[in-house]
Amino acid sequence: MQILPPVLTDLIDAFGLLPGVGPRTAERYAYYLVRRDPATPQKLANALQSLPGGLGYCEKTFALVPAGQALSDLYTDPRRDKKIVAVVSEPFDLVALEKTGQFSGTYHVLGGLISPIDGVGPEQLHIKELVKRIEDDGVEEVILATNASVEGESTALYIQQQIGDRKVKVTRLARGLPIGVDLEYADQITLGRALEGRQAL
Amino acid sequence: MQILPPVLTDLIDAFGLLPGVGPRTAERYAYYLVRRDPATPQKLANALQSLPGGLGYCEKTFALVPAGQALSDLYTDPRRDKKIVAVVSEPFDLVALEKTGQFSGTYHVLGGLISPIDGVGPEQLHIKELVKRIEDDGVEEVILATNASVEGESTALYIQQQIGDRKVKVTRLARGLPIGVDLEYADQITLGRALEGRQAL
Repeated sequence: MQILPPVLTDLIDAFGLLPGVGPRTAERYAYYLVRRDPATPQKLANALQSLPGGLGYCEKTFALVPAGQALSDLYTDPRRDKKIVAVVSEPFDLVALEKTGQFSGTYHVLGGLISPIDGVGPEQLHIKELVKRIEDDGVEEVILATNASVEGESTALYIQQQIGDRKVKVTRLARGLPIGVDLEYADQITLGRALEGRQAL
Repeated sequence: MQILPPVLTDLIDAFGLLPGVGPRTAERYAYYLVRRDPATPQKLANALQSLPGGLGYCEKTFALVPAGQALSDLYTDPRRDKKIVAVVSEPFDLVALEKTGQFSGTYHVLGGLISPIDGVGPEQLHIKELVKRIEDDGVEEVILATNASVEGESTALYIQQQIGDRKVKVTRLARGLPIGVDLEYADQITLGRALEGRQAL
């Protein structure tokens, strides 16, 4: 005996595939769409269907680009400084950096971080292409903007070794107190790093 | 200048239509699907597209049924007692009651609750059809299973008046302490109702 029509249980199951969506949230989404006019589920369905065919990767920076486009706008825009390259792990990390509005260089997306436990070695990441870019574009500064995690730090270290003694400044994002956090609630490691990286006023 | 391809920003916007999904959660869902094989977004897209055309309402109980089906399985199943009718507000409320596994009667979905502030009057709800069912099916008990809210209580009161002096038992769900809640943390109104509804052991 069916309590709910199959179209509805199928939709609940499909929403359950999304990260962090349990049965209750999936039900909530599905029930909400039942109550809306058909345009709302249709809009989401169309957006989902266009996704796989609509994405490509920039040949130079490996950022996400619309399918068929060779280079990212963030690379080709003449206002972006090709001599400064921020190296990020995932294509979405550059969105976070763009939102600061404080970076006018270009990006290089690694496509992951070195993680032996997940079977990700340096040869699977776009590190060779980064080293090549340093020469091709006459890069003057490489900003290693990887996560402040073990994988992020070790990937940064590996890249630094690969760059070797090429004449380029290698920096990484500052570690320290996040804005708005009280000293007494900061964790020991963060506080330790903030102390190490203290700056003259 | 585009930071992200339009297919991706469209998808983030579309996820933002779901209840309780802000820009960060929408981004998280979209980014997750980018990393998965194309089958995952396709599965969700298909489920969404089947939704509007795949649903209908039971002619008798107004529960959701697959399109083209006249009566709900929960009504036609011979094991369900048509003489006991649980009256609920929304089609999804009956899922909650079914999950208890303790109800073997049939349902009647009102399609909302009386709420003058939202412009919902009794004539927009399936109350007339409920009163008709009492006679048609020889109903012996009507369980008013509406929410324990102002709208739920006043709708229950209105239905009771409409049933009038027809020979049928009218009950409603017990109000009291939810299971697992400490007395000291129960709110005053709930505790007051639990006291009013105290039962002999």
